Amino acid sequence: MIDLVTLGESMALFTARRTGLLRHARDFGLSVGGAESNLAIGVTRLGRRAAWIGRVGADEFGELLRSTLAGEGVDVQGMIVDPDAPTGLMIKNRRTSEMVDVRYYRSGSAGSRLRPEDLDVSLIRSARVLHITGITLALSASAREAVRVAVAEARDAGVTVSTDVNYRRALWSPEEASAVLRETVATTDVLFATEAEARLIVDGADPAALAGALSDLGPRHVLIKRGPLGAVELSDGVVRHAEPYHVTELDPVGAGDAFAAGWLAETLEGAGPERRLATACAAGAFAVAADGDWESLPRRSDLDRLRPADAVSR
Amino acid sequence: MIDLVTLGESMALFTARRTGLLRHARDFGLSVGGAESNLAIGVTRLGRRAAWIGRVGADEFGELLRSTLAGEGVDVQGMIVDPDAPTGLMIKNRRTSEMVDVRYYRSGSAGSRLRPEDLDVSLIRSARVLHITGITLALSASAREAVRVAVAEARDAGVTVSTDVNYRRALWSPEEASAVLRETVATTDVLFATEAEARLIVDGADPAALAGALSDLGPRHVLIKRGPLGAVELSDGVVRHAEPYHVTELDPVGAGDAFAAGWLAETLEGAGPERRLATACAAGAFAVAADGDWESLPRRSDLDRLRPADAVSR
Amino acid sequence: MIDLVTLGESMALFTARRTGLLRHARDFGLSVGGAESNLAIGVTRLGRRAAWIGRVGADEFGELLRSTLAGEGVDVQGMIVDPDAPTGLMIKNRRTSEMVDVRYYRSGSAGSRLRPEDLDVSLIRSARVLHITGITLALSASAREAVRVAVAEARDAGVTVSTDVNYRRALWSPEEASAVLRETVATTDVLFATEAEARLIVDGADPAALAGALSDLGPRHVLIKRGPLGAVELSDGVVRHAEPYHVTELDPVGAGDAFAAGWLAETLEGAGPERRLATACAAGAFAVAADGDWESLPRRSDLDRLRPADAVSR
Amino acid sequence: MIDLVTLGESMALFTARRTGLLRHARDFGLSVGGAESNLAIGVTRLGRRAAWIGRVGADEFGELLRSTLAGEGVDVQGMIVDPDAPTGLMIKNRRTSEMVDVRYYRSGSAGSRLRPEDLDVSLIRSARVLHITGITLALSASAREAVRVAVAEARDAGVTVSTDVNYRRALWSPEEASAVLRETVATTDVLFATEAEARLIVDGADPAALAGALSDLGPRHVLIKRGPLGAVELSDGVVRHAEPYHVTELDPVGAGDAFAAGWLAETLEGAGPERRLATACAAGAFAVAADGDWESLPRRSDLDRLRPADAVSR
Amino acid sequence: MIDLVTLGESMALFTARRTGLLRHARDFGLSVGGAESNLAIGVTRLGRRAAWIGRVGADEFGELLRSTLAGEGVDVQGMIVDPDAPTGLMIKNRRTSEMVDVRYYRSGSAGSRLRPEDLDVSLIRSARVLHITGITLALSASAREAVRVAVAEARDAGVTVSTDVNYRRALWSPEEASAVLRETVATTDVLFATEAEARLIVDGADPAALAGALSDLGPRHVLIKRGPLGAVELSDGVVRHAEPYHVTELDPVGAGDAFAAGWLAETLEGAGPERRLATACAAGAFAVAADGDWESLPRRSDLDRLRPADAVSR
Amino acid sequence: MIDLVTLGESMALFTARRTGLLRHARDFGLSVGGAESNLAIGVTRLGRRAAWIGRVGADEFGELLRSTLAGEGVDVQGMIVDPDAPTGLMIKNRRTSEMVDVRYYRSGSAGSRLRPEDLDVSLIRSARVLHITGITLALSASAREAVRVAVAEARDAGVTVSTDVNYRRALWSPEEASAVLRETVATTDVLFATEAEARLIVDGADPAALAGALSDLGPRHVLIKRGPLGAVELSDGVVRHAEPYHVTELDPVGAGDAFAAGWLAETLEGAGPERRLATACAAGAFAVAADGDWESLPRRSDLDRLRPADAVSR
Repeated sequence: MIDLVTLGESMALFTARRTGLLRHARDFGLSVGGAESNLAIGVTRLGRRAAWIGRVGADEFGELLRSTLAGEGVDVQGMIVDPDAPTGLMIKNRRTSEMVDVRYYRSGSAGSRLRPEDLDVSLIRSARVLHITGITLALSASAREAVRVAVAEARDAGVTVSTDVNYRRALWSPEEASAVLRETVATTDVLFATEAEARLIVDGADPAALAGALSDLGPRHVLIKRGPLGAVELSDGVVRHAEPYHVTELDPVGAGDAFAAGWLAETLEGAGPERRLATACAAGAFAVAADGDWESLPRRSDLDRLRPADAVSR
Repeated sequence: MIDLVTLGESMALFTARRTGLLRHARDFGLSVGGAESNLAIGVTRLGRRAAWIGRVGADEFGELLRSTLAGEGVDVQGMIVDPDAPTGLMIKNRRTSEMVDVRYYRSGSAGSRLRPEDLDVSLIRSARVLHITGITLALSASAREAVRVAVAEARDAGVTVSTDVNYRRALWSPEEASAVLRETVATTDVLFATEAEARLIVDGADPAALAGALSDLGPRHVLIKRGPLGAVELSDGVVRHAEPYHVTELDPVGAGDAFAAGWLAETLEGAGPERRLATACAAGAFAVAADGDWESLPRRSDLDRLRPADAVSR
Repeated sequence: MIDLVTLGESMALFTARRTGLLRHARDFGLSVGGAESNLAIGVTRLGRRAAWIGRVGADEFGELLRSTLAGEGVDVQGMIVDPDAPTGLMIKNRRTSEMVDVRYYRSGSAGSRLRPEDLDVSLIRSARVLHITGITLALSASAREAVRVAVAEARDAGVTVSTDVNYRRALWSPEEASAVLRETVATTDVLFATEAEARLIVDGADPAALAGALSDLGPRHVLIKRGPLGAVELSDGVVRHAEPYHVTELDPVGAGDAFAAGWLAETLEGAGPERRLATACAAGAFAVAADGDWESLPRRSDLDRLRPADAVSR
Repeated sequence: MIDLVTLGESMALFTARRTGLLRHARDFGLSVGGAESNLAIGVTRLGRRAAWIGRVGADEFGELLRSTLAGEGVDVQGMIVDPDAPTGLMIKNRRTSEMVDVRYYRSGSAGSRLRPEDLDVSLIRSARVLHITGITLALSASAREAVRVAVAEARDAGVTVSTDVNYRRALWSPEEASAVLRETVATTDVLFATEAEARLIVDGADPAALAGALSDLGPRHVLIKRGPLGAVELSDGVVRHAEPYHVTELDPVGAGDAFAAGWLAETLEGAGPERRLATACAAGAFAVAADGDWESLPRRSDLDRLRPADAVSR
Repeated sequence: MIDLVTLGESMALFTARRTGLLRHARDFGLSVGGAESNLAIGVTRLGRRAAWIGRVGADEFGELLRSTLAGEGVDVQGMIVDPDAPTGLMIKNRRTSEMVDVRYYRSGSAGSRLRPEDLDVSLIRSARVLHITGITLALSASAREAVRVAVAEARDAGVTVSTDVNYRRALWSPEEASAVLRETVATTDVLFATEAEARLIVDGADPAALAGALSDLGPRHVLIKRGPLGAVELSDGVVRHAEPYHVTELDPVGAGDAFAAGWLAETLEGAGPERRLATACAAGAFAVAADGDWESLPRRSDLDRLRPADAVSR
Repeated sequence: MIDLVTLGESMALFTARRTGLLRHARDFGLSVGGAESNLAIGVTRLGRRAAWIGRVGADEFGELLRSTLAGEGVDVQGMIVDPDAPTGLMIKNRRTSEMVDVRYYRSGSAGSRLRPEDLDVSLIRSARVLHITGITLALSASAREAVRVAVAEARDAGVTVSTDVNYRRALWSPEEASAVLRETVATTDVLFATEAEARLIVDGADPAALAGALSDLGPRHVLIKRGPLGAVELSDGVVRHAEPYHVTELDPVGAGDAFAAGWLAETLEGAGPERRLATACAAGAFAVAADGDWESLPRRSDLDRLRPADAVSR
């Protein structure tokens, strides 16, 4: 029995081991990444069952994606091997101690060729949550259609729909994104966005105002992620402010996916609003305080090892 | 004053540090590669001046190509930065101690968008040798046209035309290649091919017969590369057999480019037929006896350090 | 539906990256290893479904074992997490270019605490092959009993029993092994052994004689593994000699497991005797020609890339 | 002439090079570690002569321990090679930028089999300081007895006894530790403890109170280590507060051993109370501001390169 | 057309990858370094054309220097290969997270044998800026004479002379330096110094006073570099205070060269005083916020990615 | 009690991890090397007590030498720290799979400043063997004089004098070497030389003839080292030919030192002529079959693991 289904593109990920310009990097690590599979791993590591749907190439990078996700316990029965297109690539490097750059080789990739026929509809209808992101909406026309079909099936079957805005400038313009996202938000139960992403869709003076404006478009739960400043949640008309955790950041990529994974996993556990928000923040803290986009996502036993920032002064 | 001009696509090259399946590789080195730039480096390292013409993306991998080639002393004034397409990628790994696999991300790359307008015609006309390969012929229609224009300009200006067949299955079919190569050979003064490549164009029972059949199509010099078995040259009606050098092979990629570089550099030096063939074999031996596609190409001072295979028993 | 079930101990495996004495090694890689899980991976990679049964500690090395095996597609539903004992360790280093040393920290390990109650009997009874090794017989009294129960269940259900002698001097004496193995061979349908291992059980002047003597004890198929000299099979009274493949050996560990995996996978495919023996030898060649105990095991598509040794001179 | 003798267990130490879960670590360094040998190295590096007594296995890790300690100038004539048990192992990894995990494979190790007969009594009686830790007390009954004998010999010969509580939860319970430590403190001249460790033995509202309560049990000098908050010393009825040094922490392990080494080395030098406390803090700062448990311990010439935290604002 | 010419010694640079004592380092990276070539790279990367003059050995480290500088686009036509002396070496390691040590093997090096005859006088006379440092003044008598000749030629041709004090204790005493520097400053248009370096030449209560006193000796522009505290500029009688940028420092070496490169590149661009000072600080920030002495120097497109420290609180 | 004393220069040794030109190496390991200390380690590892006399700088590389030799059990009481000169450096890289290059930074090094006053004469007089090499004779006038004094003391005290020719072209010319070596051989009891080295001193058609001619100059034992062809010994008028061992060579440096160490260690053990020659060859085989100049030298327990080449065909 699958708790959560998500769909999107995951890629092979080369990460430079040296901080500085990519041209001087001489050592790279290889892993995989993708917002939706990061989330699926995060949910799985916290004890819930998640499935990932997507296309990979008939190549070793596709095998790497399969073995990594299966190894992490994510259900990959919905993974499709595309015989005609390669698995996409990401190249990540740290320009300085403060700046991370990511570059994609995903044009024409297997992952971007996702289409409605790829969906295992019964898998979606029998899950408790369907999670989608703005990235998949931006990959290609067929991928966007696949998301729409998935959402329609989920809503028809009473499955909670969760959306992470996850705006990627390399994939579409703010104008194009704005229209599509506005429409998507209207069919969403849970919405995750940063302040900047929220402003692509609505106006608002501060995080709470943005959450309110987004909530007016439909979602019952709106989560505004503020990075080192914590988070703001508006659920059922109640605003909650989450304390951040004090950690030394090693790799900021994946923090948002971790946050959503924490929130959704606790919701699937039946946790109350305080705990699901605290776990969301904790998951984000673990994600940034170690190397890798998803490798450091917390196990249940890790959660007690972090203290909120205001606890430090006690 | 440039001795030799070549044109083609070079790419960023990720090489797995572990022998085995790519999915288990966790450490990669980054360098650059490309048959034509390998050759330009090889000619430069043996003391002649070479220029490389090609397109790179407006990205750090393009900068890596520029700094690597310029650092090696290759003239890169003909390098064009394409604002709209990325630098292509190669991924190389050793499947076992005997098998090397290479995979490309070059579809739609800057390099494949080479076109006749990119050529610095005066550079070509003032050189002594123009070197082309079958790879550039196969990249795209515009790249093939660029090669044709370059060859026509060279011939018109009395510049020697050198061609390395360099057949790549991933780029075109044997049938498509056969027709184009036949036509190309007819406008070539020097031709480099393996036995298998020769058979794409002509028939022949053995290397000497193949060389003869190719020579009948036009080239004054035909070089049949036989890897660890040495090489056969047919020049001005005389057949020469080259002894191989005994080395432990570490990386076979680039051996053919090294061979052609050795032969052409010695020709530009005015060396006689024995020496240009010996240097060609020596360059190939250096190329395979160390890591990297071109990094190990010999300096002049290295040439004396190798002994032909039959010298071992003395 | 599972084709093959095996049971045993797998461990975290530290491998020194430098050739020489362990005291001078400063860089180690981490993977996992174990004869039975190596075999399960090998069978899986050739397209058949395999399950591994064993105990791991409630620690990160146990998680590494789970994620590695699941990632490779091995069924790990029969993996048991022992809350009271740690996952065992192996330390592997290459003393010289020719000598590999392995050291174990497995005394009191979770894996050695395997016991009959750990077995998923229905899994065993519904499989087509049960594969066991002499290592599990030597781990502990409870592990030996678990093997005996598994074999008894398999035989009762008409499941083929396959045994790899896999003698480990660190675990038991030749005398102790001899008695137990003799008894085990009598209940085995397929037997894998090196010449030295065969001599622990029977006498014989040469591989064929040893195979005959072993066959007399019960097994229908006896495979004598001879490393770089190939292999001898005695099946249904017919002796076959397998040509070895010429490869440069990088890591000899796991060659025997690969051989058995190749033979069993082809048998499960319904292949004839020539092909199953050829695939067994090919799998062994792949295993030794790259780094790692199991990482280099062949995919189906790899098998065509090797040529037998006598093909080289053609 | 040996200034200080200590006894305990040292182990081979594998350290993950990547921050995150151990299951994702792929690169490990190898060194050695152990509270008592760390201290012996620290005392040696500051110019005094120290000897380490303990057991190692008849294996390469034992050789690594011997060569490392001898290489650092520690007297290892009291090292015993146990033919029947292996050298223990430690596995260290950084879970996040803030959390370090250590895991042991020391059950049944050579080091834990230390016993009274292993002691070179004349070496202990002729030294000026005997240093023991709570770890050795917890290793095994024979190791505890060895500590007791060593202390008795030292006291009989007028040798100063120094004790570091060094409580390890993996080795014994707080209750078990409490009783043994209380007894040990009574025979100690110098006592090192963290606040938490002090509370295993006595009660007290703050560090000074804890030091007072411990002092009442016997020790003339009590040092309460407070990590980044500095330290408190109670000696001969006088309380001193040590300023911490501001450093970026890279590896917290070994800080306590460094502190004790600094304090004892200066005491052996005949330094006054201000300097011995300042050097203790400086040694701790060096230990945490670089990689390794003991590698970064200060040379005499290093001590001037650190400034106390309050000096920063001058 | 060259904008800036500089002359000095560059060396092969081994950098320890581990933080701690050099004796425990086991992995080193290889690059090149030298204050003047660092500056030439910095000026080039910001879009101006720079040339470096100096001697290297007829060895692979000399080739490394040539290929690195040429690869970075620095004009190296003035590089001289000395057949009789080796390229010098630097060994850099991080003693702790806060302390970096550098050690030289440059006694008798090719670089230190620079002499007036090595200068391409027409290159200097046709440039817009000549940049020298106190390091070259201290290398040898012939190098000092070469600097003097270069400055005289520049002044005669109306070329702006820029000087970075760059005091190196290992090369000369404060007394020796003081006299030579005082004389040098008198012939300088632009002067870069830290506070400590300024005090080798003049007295002054604070940075502005030091700048004033230095300005009185001749320079029209005096820049006092204050590291994390920013910088003070006195130009044409106007004092400007530069805000520092907040970055996490990874490698402090090269910050001063970066600062001077930023200031000079903007001056060559014709930028106003605010911008040249801001770019100088930004270049320094980039230099310290990534690995390597010069590798992280900013491209033009990088400059917008940094914010001054006081912007953080907005 | 010391069995063998040797004196010479040892250096820090940087070894490129990549095969190819040094300019492309990006990763280096750090160890130490020196013919005489290699020999001292080799003798120690085979169970005899050896002392090394030499100078090192007052720097971390000097500390590395001390800790490495002491760690290996070599007596370093005769090590002198030179406050005025640095420890020398060696840079080693593999140009191709067959060619190793070594480059030195030892001009003016501490090691080359060895002088007669540095000798611990009583240590030499009380040893059983004094071992010297041609390298120390070539380092400097004072070093040569130190060797002469050491030999004179040894002969006066009846200590066996052993000499390894160890000709280094970078240190002196064949002519200079020839005269000095001829004189040295006359005062030697045991002489080690390659064929080429022997020809610097005497003439001879083959190894046995060379050994005879050398023996005529004085030595009772002459050993001609022939690398992969084995060795020839002439002792007391009897010629013995040693079979080589078949190993894959990873690092040829240090093979000669290993050979001498094996021969001398067995002689010190009182072994007969067959065994001392076999151990010499085995030690050479171990030295080349793993990484490092001395790290792979055999322990006593290793010796049985090698088989002579002619055993392979049995």
